[in-house]
Amino acid sequence: MLTVAELATHVGGRLIGDGSIHIERVADVSTAGAGAIAYVEDEKFFEAGKSSQASCLIAPEAFVTLVKDLIVDKEFGPALIEVVKPKLAFALIAEQLHPAKSREPFVHESAAIAESADIDLTVYIGPHVSIGEGTRIEAGTRIEAGVAIGDHVRVGRDCVLHPGVTLYDDLTIGDRVVLHAGVVVGADGFGYVHDDGDEKKGYHKFPQRGTVVIEDDVELGAHTCVDRAALGQTRIGRGTKLDNLVHVGHNCDIGERVVIAAQTGISGSVTIEDDVVIGGQVGFGDHIRVMSGAVIGSKAGVLPGKIVRPGVWWGIPIQPLDEYKRLNAHLARVPEMREEIKELKKQLGELQNKFRD
Amino acid sequence: MLTVAELATHVGGRLIGDGSIHIERVADVSTAGAGAIAYVEDEKFFEAGKSSQASCLIAPEAFVTLVKDLIVDKEFGPALIEVVKPKLAFALIAEQLHPAKSREPFVHESAAIAESADIDLTVYIGPHVSIGEGTRIEAGTRIEAGVAIGDHVRVGRDCVLHPGVTLYDDLTIGDRVVLHAGVVVGADGFGYVHDDGDEKKGYHKFPQRGTVVIEDDVELGAHTCVDRAALGQTRIGRGTKLDNLVHVGHNCDIGERVVIAAQTGISGSVTIEDDVVIGGQVGFGDHIRVMSGAVIGSKAGVLPGKIVRPGVWWGIPIQPLDEYKRLNAHLARVPEMREEIKELKKQLGELQNKFRD
Amino acid sequence: MLTVAELATHVGGRLIGDGSIHIERVADVSTAGAGAIAYVEDEKFFEAGKSSQASCLIAPEAFVTLVKDLIVDKEFGPALIEVVKPKLAFALIAEQLHPAKSREPFVHESAAIAESADIDLTVYIGPHVSIGEGTRIEAGTRIEAGVAIGDHVRVGRDCVLHPGVTLYDDLTIGDRVVLHAGVVVGADGFGYVHDDGDEKKGYHKFPQRGTVVIEDDVELGAHTCVDRAALGQTRIGRGTKLDNLVHVGHNCDIGERVVIAAQTGISGSVTIEDDVVIGGQVGFGDHIRVMSGAVIGSKAGVLPGKIVRPGVWWGIPIQPLDEYKRLNAHLARVPEMREEIKELKKQLGELQNKFRD
Repeated sequence: MLTVAELATHVGGRLIGDGSIHIERVADVSTAGAGAIAYVEDEKFFEAGKSSQASCLIAPEAFVTLVKDLIVDKEFGPALIEVVKPKLAFALIAEQLHPAKSREPFVHESAAIAESADIDLTVYIGPHVSIGEGTRIEAGTRIEAGVAIGDHVRVGRDCVLHPGVTLYDDLTIGDRVVLHAGVVVGADGFGYVHDDGDEKKGYHKFPQRGTVVIEDDVELGAHTCVDRAALGQTRIGRGTKLDNLVHVGHNCDIGERVVIAAQTGISGSVTIEDDVVIGGQVGFGDHIRVMSGAVIGSKAGVLPGKIVRPGVWWGIPIQPLDEYKRLNAHLARVPEMREEIKELKKQLGELQNKFRD
Repeated sequence: MLTVAELATHVGGRLIGDGSIHIERVADVSTAGAGAIAYVEDEKFFEAGKSSQASCLIAPEAFVTLVKDLIVDKEFGPALIEVVKPKLAFALIAEQLHPAKSREPFVHESAAIAESADIDLTVYIGPHVSIGEGTRIEAGTRIEAGVAIGDHVRVGRDCVLHPGVTLYDDLTIGDRVVLHAGVVVGADGFGYVHDDGDEKKGYHKFPQRGTVVIEDDVELGAHTCVDRAALGQTRIGRGTKLDNLVHVGHNCDIGERVVIAAQTGISGSVTIEDDVVIGGQVGFGDHIRVMSGAVIGSKAGVLPGKIVRPGVWWGIPIQPLDEYKRLNAHLARVPEMREEIKELKKQLGELQNKFRD
Repeated sequence: MLTVAELATHVGGRLIGDGSIHIERVADVSTAGAGAIAYVEDEKFFEAGKSSQASCLIAPEAFVTLVKDLIVDKEFGPALIEVVKPKLAFALIAEQLHPAKSREPFVHESAAIAESADIDLTVYIGPHVSIGEGTRIEAGTRIEAGVAIGDHVRVGRDCVLHPGVTLYDDLTIGDRVVLHAGVVVGADGFGYVHDDGDEKKGYHKFPQRGTVVIEDDVELGAHTCVDRAALGQTRIGRGTKLDNLVHVGHNCDIGERVVIAAQTGISGSVTIEDDVVIGGQVGFGDHIRVMSGAVIGSKAGVLPGKIVRPGVWWGIPIQPLDEYKRLNAHLARVPEMREEIKELKKQLGELQNKFRD
């Protein structure tokens, strides 16, 4: 529990009202009650803000101006913290009020930990965890029930591995990485060589002996899969966030602060540069390069080998959003065009008939 | 094992033939043998029905009429149960003949159950299960190997949690809910706030502190993920069925008896009303409302903020199926239209030349 | 570690250079160093090959000819193995140098194995595994941490089940099958019968009582789900390879040596014949038949009931790739066509005006 004044200081905001009020939780502006702090960012929520029962509201200048008279008339209840970016301030305050679940250092008796594993004394290891030979787990990391970690893996500091995560052998996970339930890192990439001469097997596995490097502050959603490289490494850069059920193929190089929504699939050897934003259910062929500054809309499809330049992209195969919209507007007129052609034919025929002889 | 007469009574059907025959299993009409019951619903399968080796057939009136003479001539073997909806009767009879696997009340010695958890005495708990503090599991529920349940979860009566299911903290699961292997409920929603001023992290997590409510009689397919709400709740309504690998984002409100096929993805804050039917690999942007009576075809894409009215919808972005078909028929004529335009130009040119001077 | 001469013999290649050099690992041509073997297949990599620091290169005749003079002048370091298909030879050599991780026969003390299970003495069973009644595991198979196997399952010889795999009851898995982390085999198919008369439940489950047969040499990617048949069997044929997060519905019959990329979804009762190749994120409606010789591009959608003939297919719904490209080229001209129609109208109007009276 913190006071409004402490929270205002934490986000560098201007305090309006009673700074001594205690805040214990964040809440939605429309359902917040006593002890809760909420936020309003844009006009759509100003009405809700005016009648909010929250103990404190984080708001932009425009809202503060709007309720100035109400404050004077004591018709407006909450204390106010005025900031330029209320949603960001709300997120920062939520981190203060609700720190991630903390676990005391602990190793559950059911955990199966190889003798040569090197586990920091501050680590939490839940039930039914397994940790392989030569693996190192660093300080403050929390490993929940049923996580399976292979041999020679390094997991950094203050990570959270939720239940059922699988890390294959020979991987590197940075600090403050969050892996949600069922994440799989390091499974074999999908590479085979066809053997005409071996009718029985048909395919031989191309060697999948590379590694995966997950850098600091990455978060991977539930059941997201990041395959190991064939040779070399697959990389997820610092601060990158992947949603649920994303597939990252072998040898991909994904930069820093990239955001990828749910169920997107990335084939092998794709490079995605820093700060790219990608929607859900997008599909990438192999050997693509997506440049910094590119935004790719949901459900788009990118052909193998393409270079995607900065800008907003859309469709299958992708095209600049503007062009996509323009072409679609034209296509919507095709039925009308057919009528026009019919009419032109008719009129031309009449004119031709007039001068037939 | 039940008699044909008992089964006919159970589904309110008309018995034709020997009611004392014992039936032990359901089967496909073409492969069924002695002791099996099968069904024929429409004409496509009437031929297979006529030569079926099943001990009993569930059939509509039209089929019974068709085989009447065969029965008189003793050329048709199976007993018959005549009903209006043979497939439904078949499903009801299968429930009788093959009740869900039953497990005696039991707690495997390897299960890690918090002291404050409240487990009904009739519950089955398999090996390597973990159950957190303050969690309640109600009567008759079956929890298979490797399931991980967090703190302060309530799981209702007669549920089945298949191997490897993960329930995060603070969730509510209703009665008779079936969660297939690998289902994840309650992982964090995908919400971040960009912080220009913090180059190192880039993104701060928007608080993901809400809950998930799964109502009675819901079934979720293997590896389906239902994220917790940011603030408030994500809800899956009574009797709703989701196939494998479906993604449900934070704060979605999915109504009762909704059906969603495999690999569909639903972004945050989407409302899907009762009885909606959704195909596979459909994608929803955020803040969509799908009204009761809507049917959305597989692979469709729905843009953020849309209201989807009753009717059949198709395509990316979605449009009424009729319009989609009509427009596509027009688009298929574009090559022909190009020829027509060329011909018009030519003829017009000839006419113009004729009168050039 | 093997000598160059031994490796050349293994792949039936022509040895050029010192056959006594020892090779310990495979590597990429551009990063390979002493002790490593790499390959070059086509001209794109010939430059990298010429300056490679590998101890041995596998190469086609064209490359050997190219470096002949360099070898004479001692400017080219690596030994050479000349073969017709370098990539295949590289894969075969990688199998020799890096055999799959071997595990001594072992049963972890935490494994929960039913008394009636029949486990070959050479099997490896990791921590937190569970194996049900009447299940048989054959020689040389490796079952990693947290795998859950139901009752009456048969797993063949020399299989690898990675962490967190779930096998439901009553399945058959062949020899040398590799199931990556989180694979689920045998979950219920998605089949329900609507019951207008039962408002409470809405849907009754159609019986899902069939089985799944996974034949020899199949590999399934992480989190891939193969549902059991309603009645009868779902089959994955010998040597077939599925990537991550693929969904295979009930009663599918997938042939031999089929290749399916990530996140593709296959509805119930689809037949895919031998040697078909399918891209990622493809969607199949039910009751489709894909004939041998068909190749289906990524993100394609196939309508229920279709027969897909040999050839290359593309788009939603699928069409032959050639036709798809041709139609799209036409569609791209629609904006231009609108201009042409406008111009025709104008000119025709002028002509009409000229002769108005």
